[in-house]
Amino acid sequence: MASASGVIRRLLAARTKTPAVLQYSLSRAFSTAFREERDTFGPMNVPADRYWGAQTQRSLQNFEIGGARERMPEQLIQAFGVLKKSAAKVNIEYGLDPTIGKAIIQAAQEVADGKLISHFPLVVWQTGSGTQTNMNANEVIANRAAEILGKKPGEKAVHPNDHVNKSQSSNDTFPTAMHIAAAVEINNRLLPKLQGLKDALAAKSDDFKHIVKIGRTHTQDAVPLTLGQEFSGYTTQVKYGIDRVQATLPHLYQLAQGGTAVGTGLNTKRGFDVKIADAVAIETSLPFVTAENKFEALAAHDAFVETSGALNTVAVSLMKIANDIRFLGSGPRCGLGELLLPENEPGSSIMPGKVNPTQCEALTMVCAQVIGNHVAITVGGSNGHFELNVFKPLLANSLLQSLRLLGDAAESFRKNCVVGIRANEGRIAQLVHESLMLVTALNPKIGYDKAAAVAKKAHKEGTTLKDAALKLEVLTAKEFEELVVPEKMIGPSD
Amino acid sequence: MASASGVIRRLLAARTKTPAVLQYSLSRAFSTAFREERDTFGPMNVPADRYWGAQTQRSLQNFEIGGARERMPEQLIQAFGVLKKSAAKVNIEYGLDPTIGKAIIQAAQEVADGKLISHFPLVVWQTGSGTQTNMNANEVIANRAAEILGKKPGEKAVHPNDHVNKSQSSNDTFPTAMHIAAAVEINNRLLPKLQGLKDALAAKSDDFKHIVKIGRTHTQDAVPLTLGQEFSGYTTQVKYGIDRVQATLPHLYQLAQGGTAVGTGLNTKRGFDVKIADAVAIETSLPFVTAENKFEALAAHDAFVETSGALNTVAVSLMKIANDIRFLGSGPRCGLGELLLPENEPGSSIMPGKVNPTQCEALTMVCAQVIGNHVAITVGGSNGHFELNVFKPLLANSLLQSLRLLGDAAESFRKNCVVGIRANEGRIAQLVHESLMLVTALNPKIGYDKAAAVAKKAHKEGTTLKDAALKLEVLTAKEFEELVVPEKMIGPSD
Amino acid sequence: MASASGVIRRLLAARTKTPAVLQYSLSRAFSTAFREERDTFGPMNVPADRYWGAQTQRSLQNFEIGGARERMPEQLIQAFGVLKKSAAKVNIEYGLDPTIGKAIIQAAQEVADGKLISHFPLVVWQTGSGTQTNMNANEVIANRAAEILGKKPGEKAVHPNDHVNKSQSSNDTFPTAMHIAAAVEINNRLLPKLQGLKDALAAKSDDFKHIVKIGRTHTQDAVPLTLGQEFSGYTTQVKYGIDRVQATLPHLYQLAQGGTAVGTGLNTKRGFDVKIADAVAIETSLPFVTAENKFEALAAHDAFVETSGALNTVAVSLMKIANDIRFLGSGPRCGLGELLLPENEPGSSIMPGKVNPTQCEALTMVCAQVIGNHVAITVGGSNGHFELNVFKPLLANSLLQSLRLLGDAAESFRKNCVVGIRANEGRIAQLVHESLMLVTALNPKIGYDKAAAVAKKAHKEGTTLKDAALKLEVLTAKEFEELVVPEKMIGPSD
Amino acid sequence: MASASGVIRRLLAARTKTPAVLQYSLSRAFSTAFREERDTFGPMNVPADRYWGAQTQRSLQNFEIGGARERMPEQLIQAFGVLKKSAAKVNIEYGLDPTIGKAIIQAAQEVADGKLISHFPLVVWQTGSGTQTNMNANEVIANRAAEILGKKPGEKAVHPNDHVNKSQSSNDTFPTAMHIAAAVEINNRLLPKLQGLKDALAAKSDDFKHIVKIGRTHTQDAVPLTLGQEFSGYTTQVKYGIDRVQATLPHLYQLAQGGTAVGTGLNTKRGFDVKIADAVAIETSLPFVTAENKFEALAAHDAFVETSGALNTVAVSLMKIANDIRFLGSGPRCGLGELLLPENEPGSSIMPGKVNPTQCEALTMVCAQVIGNHVAITVGGSNGHFELNVFKPLLANSLLQSLRLLGDAAESFRKNCVVGIRANEGRIAQLVHESLMLVTALNPKIGYDKAAAVAKKAHKEGTTLKDAALKLEVLTAKEFEELVVPEKMIGPSD
Repeated sequence: MASASGVIRRLLAARTKTPAVLQYSLSRAFSTAFREERDTFGPMNVPADRYWGAQTQRSLQNFEIGGARERMPEQLIQAFGVLKKSAAKVNIEYGLDPTIGKAIIQAAQEVADGKLISHFPLVVWQTGSGTQTNMNANEVIANRAAEILGKKPGEKAVHPNDHVNKSQSSNDTFPTAMHIAAAVEINNRLLPKLQGLKDALAAKSDDFKHIVKIGRTHTQDAVPLTLGQEFSGYTTQVKYGIDRVQATLPHLYQLAQGGTAVGTGLNTKRGFDVKIADAVAIETSLPFVTAENKFEALAAHDAFVETSGALNTVAVSLMKIANDIRFLGSGPRCGLGELLLPENEPGSSIMPGKVNPTQCEALTMVCAQVIGNHVAITVGGSNGHFELNVFKPLLANSLLQSLRLLGDAAESFRKNCVVGIRANEGRIAQLVHESLMLVTALNPKIGYDKAAAVAKKAHKEGTTLKDAALKLEVLTAKEFEELVVPEKMIGPSD
Repeated sequence: MASASGVIRRLLAARTKTPAVLQYSLSRAFSTAFREERDTFGPMNVPADRYWGAQTQRSLQNFEIGGARERMPEQLIQAFGVLKKSAAKVNIEYGLDPTIGKAIIQAAQEVADGKLISHFPLVVWQTGSGTQTNMNANEVIANRAAEILGKKPGEKAVHPNDHVNKSQSSNDTFPTAMHIAAAVEINNRLLPKLQGLKDALAAKSDDFKHIVKIGRTHTQDAVPLTLGQEFSGYTTQVKYGIDRVQATLPHLYQLAQGGTAVGTGLNTKRGFDVKIADAVAIETSLPFVTAENKFEALAAHDAFVETSGALNTVAVSLMKIANDIRFLGSGPRCGLGELLLPENEPGSSIMPGKVNPTQCEALTMVCAQVIGNHVAITVGGSNGHFELNVFKPLLANSLLQSLRLLGDAAESFRKNCVVGIRANEGRIAQLVHESLMLVTALNPKIGYDKAAAVAKKAHKEGTTLKDAALKLEVLTAKEFEELVVPEKMIGPSD
Repeated sequence: MASASGVIRRLLAARTKTPAVLQYSLSRAFSTAFREERDTFGPMNVPADRYWGAQTQRSLQNFEIGGARERMPEQLIQAFGVLKKSAAKVNIEYGLDPTIGKAIIQAAQEVADGKLISHFPLVVWQTGSGTQTNMNANEVIANRAAEILGKKPGEKAVHPNDHVNKSQSSNDTFPTAMHIAAAVEINNRLLPKLQGLKDALAAKSDDFKHIVKIGRTHTQDAVPLTLGQEFSGYTTQVKYGIDRVQATLPHLYQLAQGGTAVGTGLNTKRGFDVKIADAVAIETSLPFVTAENKFEALAAHDAFVETSGALNTVAVSLMKIANDIRFLGSGPRCGLGELLLPENEPGSSIMPGKVNPTQCEALTMVCAQVIGNHVAITVGGSNGHFELNVFKPLLANSLLQSLRLLGDAAESFRKNCVVGIRANEGRIAQLVHESLMLVTALNPKIGYDKAAAVAKKAHKEGTTLKDAALKLEVLTAKEFEELVVPEKMIGPSD
Repeated sequence: MASASGVIRRLLAARTKTPAVLQYSLSRAFSTAFREERDTFGPMNVPADRYWGAQTQRSLQNFEIGGARERMPEQLIQAFGVLKKSAAKVNIEYGLDPTIGKAIIQAAQEVADGKLISHFPLVVWQTGSGTQTNMNANEVIANRAAEILGKKPGEKAVHPNDHVNKSQSSNDTFPTAMHIAAAVEINNRLLPKLQGLKDALAAKSDDFKHIVKIGRTHTQDAVPLTLGQEFSGYTTQVKYGIDRVQATLPHLYQLAQGGTAVGTGLNTKRGFDVKIADAVAIETSLPFVTAENKFEALAAHDAFVETSGALNTVAVSLMKIANDIRFLGSGPRCGLGELLLPENEPGSSIMPGKVNPTQCEALTMVCAQVIGNHVAITVGGSNGHFELNVFKPLLANSLLQSLRLLGDAAESFRKNCVVGIRANEGRIAQLVHESLMLVTALNPKIGYDKAAAVAKKAHKEGTTLKDAALKLEVLTAKEFEELVVPEKMIGPSD
């Protein structure tokens, strides 16, 4: 390490002082007026212009972890809106006062629409059941529903537990909201974006189907294939990736709702679980069903680990594709140079004119995060105990981040990179014809050992394969010319 | 840290000396007589009593990594036997001299049967294509086939490349053998063992269906469920795990064979790929097919990453189940004590009479390794380049280890733990009746807030819920007794 | 899976329709008026009320990945402020026009103070060198400095490249800012918070030093120790964790600045690297030095992988501690019940009066994310190529998230859990005296085999050890009473 | 997927049948004669020619997981020999019968020398405390010591618990043996091999110090550096890696011995812990000390997680270096072609004459496994409970594998690759002079924007930078020739 100057030695002594320049806080621009809310622990002051109640406020104060950046993902909050609306509909069937029920439905719809997002201030890093976010939803919906009914917030004309949370427990609502949010994100964002990417790669595969190029194995020159064949491999990877994600949906479509606290369904009426799954299915147009076994659905989140595993495989595929494309597009003069990638922005703050494969970079970074999140989800998923896994908010947050990032990055990569890729045909033709590995076509004629001698001689002497073959007298010029034709080497023979 | 004695200070000075006591070597009990074998790099001496040739010998010398413990897994070697036999059968159809072909078939069958395992000395940590193990198979089969035909080893009467490897490349044989080995291991070991475990858990779930016990969420007392319900969750986890593993088989059943060096099938005849997949299917009684896209099948191993992802989810499930069982069986006097686990061996070298949940421990350690191997496989799978992924031996080794360990550990856990689990019914009954969370049954009657007051009062004063409820005058004794009945709290109401 | 109702079947047909209720967008509340900015790719419209220029705007449009939630961490933006200020100071020494230089210093200070954070809209998932964020800093500082000098934005009176970025490249500024941000976060947040946690655990260890309790190994009853001893283990874990994090600081204090594009320092003057490290050290009061080898500092981020490894170990420690505390505090009536944890909030939306170890849960979820981020960082760190690792923004984001979360969660756990933990002494005493493992004290007297017989007899017959020992006639009552004293079993004998 | 033929459909029906060809078993070539041994569970038959006793035999039967391949690592068994010898020496001081003690010392020395390895048949996947392997050591040493004293095995003239395990517990011996084995492996294998690799890279850096080559960032052409500078980055990475591993040794040198069952040291005499650490230090010539806190040393294995974290960083470094070297050596005609790597073996079974960077491949596969093992170790390390972490055998096995593989692979890579690398100077010179990024040298003279215009013009028109610069009239030919000199671009200016 470079030796510290005198300046540094003095600083070392002063190290304990906090450098003021790097201190900052995320301003929480809430009202400075307050009203009193109560829960079973007693009264709490909450910002007067927010719908949340005492339990939300308690969580805000007890879990100062990570700041605003770490709030519960919006997809989950909106899924709670969908769920609470569905619950109110079913609860009316089972005897909830319809006036209260309808107000809850209206308020919950606003949550589902994302209109009340500023009333959900809690971070991911709270209780592991997500109870506080369930209560946040209950409190916000109760106070908003009360307002709709002309009542004041905090008076519990609509009660967060007895009305909004009726027949529910955080232990079944939170995993239900997790499944809703993930399934919607997969159907609305990830799968369409992967499909778009697959189609774009397939189109390139078709465009490039007649371009014969050098193959590379072990990063070294190998026998030829077409650029279209190369892209067909990428297309297949993404196509299988779509299959893999879809294969996880049946378990995601199973909803825990109706299990209440430990999976037994205590405090629900028979049939509640099926009805609420139907209601959620109608709201989302997705085929949700009630979970076959509610004990599994609360105590484990194997379905999330499974889905994350599919994303991990997709990330592995996309990492390979993006790496290939940036290496094949490397240059412009000192790389492989077979592909010409779109130039989207200046690439360097010091090297003028430089253009970089930045879309590949964004995508591979996303893949690394997805791979990392998969481990976080695996660790969280493996640590459930007894009737409840208490890593729920982590699982929700990590999976939803992975889904969102993969979907967005696939689309950005498609739009800003893949569709604009062109083949550098002159360069490609030059390389394939120089390659020594064309010698492989001689195997069936002269055998592996003699073919190896030809290639080694050409390599050693820097000549063409043909020169070497003729000097070694293993075949005639005519024979060589008939056999060593890259265009004939791209498939089985008849 | 404890201060180092004078002795230590002297030792520190001498630290560079290797402590002789810890040096050892794995004796390789090969013949000390040698014969000469040749490859395109020239001659090599190989042990006279081994069938391998020059390329195997070169690899032995160039990759001294890890020793005998790190040899290629036997399942993979045997899968090479199956593949080489199948290839010879198809090659005869395409013109290979039947005399040579039949000798290859006989020799390959011996490899498939595991009879020649001592002729496969190479470690996993070699070339990333597995070429050296493919050549090991080619060389051993060629020399053994020559012997069958009355020829000497090393003379190449049967040629490792031109005959045994005919129409093949390491780049398609190695992934084909990987898929064969993994699919066989899944069908023959893992799935039957998981099925056995599932059945054992289901039987316990049935045995325990009338035992009402305290539920636990957040590790804390919660509302009741039956022990049978608790085990039904475990049963469902394993059942879904079986589904998850099975869902990965279709991609594993796709064989790369016929792609040769880069996926094009150069040096094969049209139809070779389909015929060889059929031949492998016949040998193994498993529904192998030729891969839809050979470029994907060589350049990526997403199928292995996918299968490993399923194993990762199974590991997560089994970790949860094993953890629950050891905690529920903790004691004998100072733990939860609800389960009585079989006593298989003395548990402590210092604490006489101690018995431990050792099967849970072996299983959870296996799960940790499977989770780790999944990351190794993910890293290897993501680092393919161009036409070939060169992490093949790592992928084969890690996945086969995970498969073997999970299968064996599931069976050991079933046999030595699950089938012997008994319920400690007295203890279970005592705990459930003491629990304060039975108060939840009062919610529909008196509301959440009053019910909370009852529970808090009982907790604070160390009394029963009933005492507290009566003192708070929220309901009568009769009402309480009708509502708070654990046996009525284990499902929805009508 | 529960069978889908008729409703569901209809929905399945309609699944392609996007459920409108779950669509939302993060409103970007920027000005709707625009001005023109230019870069080497041409003109771009940018919001009139923002300082950023054409390159930032291009990135905004080219990388629509993840939305506002995924913006570059503020600590990194502020570190760029510190760096650009330092660069301007040194550049003045090397000939930069002091008028321009001073305006840059003033503008950069505003960035360092967090005042211009709303001018940094870019997401993490951009170019892998972070060039776009470096240019964002250059553009904002250039336009703000121009404004200070009375010039208009976009006219480049202060040039983002030639003035603000003078003698710099993204390739050295971004890793420099990464190191500054991480080192500051460690010194200002993580280490003080871990120290606070260590002190709190040490205080509890002292408080509990006379409370003898049952030990548990394999989750089963074992020989006694004091509760203070148990907490001394936790204290040591956190203490070593602090050491582990501190041990990574020397590599973090090495700054890449001065390496410019590839590590050679092209376009800098000799000595620039040392001077700028000194300037950063002065700004931050931390002992930064110039990196010993700039090629390593650009092409690899092993220092980040190393630091993340230390955090991974800290996460492992904290996971163990939090798990112990929640299990020891489990109950209130059906768990181990040895610890009484603070009651901070209602624990359940359905089970009234329930209190949960929520701080343990938040902490363990954070640990799972840190473990996952470590894998993301490992993957990113391993994939650098040639002169530049292009996973820089991922590495910065993941490590800064891990640092922030660990620091905050350690503090929350300390404040809201550890300091309020009380021992449930009655329960502890009851358990320790019932334990059969006290038999271990008999080993030196009667040998392991006879001691085992005593324990097994007591276990089988449900009696005390003493009863069993007397029945087996292995020692007298007096001998038993002298030997089996939990208070004498908590250390070596003299 | 290719459609299954009729053959396949028939096979699917028959799938349940186990394909006989793939069944095999690891023959355990033990004696078929037996003798009876006893433990507290009763009698057991053990092979007559093996020293182990009843508890080892029980474990063999109860943990049929993974077979012979999964036996406890030999380094650990040998470390047990060192430990048991040391314990006997100290126990004699504390009163153990010297006749028995000396026989134990002799027998333990044989274990330490690896002479009795065939008497240690147990697999890793057993009890999580490693008790069974501790008892395996106790039983083997007891029976061998008895034999030395002229007694019969099984008669317990030397008792495995009361004599060999005196003052010990598996809970302190197993972690002690773990630390001994790891520290010896690091000192004897890993560090010397990493040092050798570092020296080889440094020598290449020196050899190549005058070779100016193109730099590459984002895989794209960038400004020049010397090949020596490039290798200096690799050298620094390995050098820091050595530092990182060494920094973990102080925690590894702390021994748990003396903590016995739960860390209190019950059944030891005061001073036993310090004396035994001294004895181990003498045996190994390594500065072992007694652990500062025995509770931490039994209940957590953070020291192993820490060491594994250092190996993870080393793996990341080596992955980067190996990737660079294989890409820089790619070709021979269609790659980057700047390095000529040693040709060690034929590279392809189908492509004659092909040579591949196989040492890079073996090394990167090892790195992937080390990264995976790190996650396994992290999961195992995080799951300790109360007074004991019961993932000890997993932790030992994974870390020892990582250490061994990294050490061996570093040496193989050094010997078979690095020392033989040559620069392809003609190719290097050609590339650097064609690069457009030399334009960066013009920044200080003509500014970033004009320099960008020059580069873009040359790129678009396929001309030289000089042509473009002159056409754009931004400087004269003489000025250009003075500024754009690769040899002047490899460092700061004066």
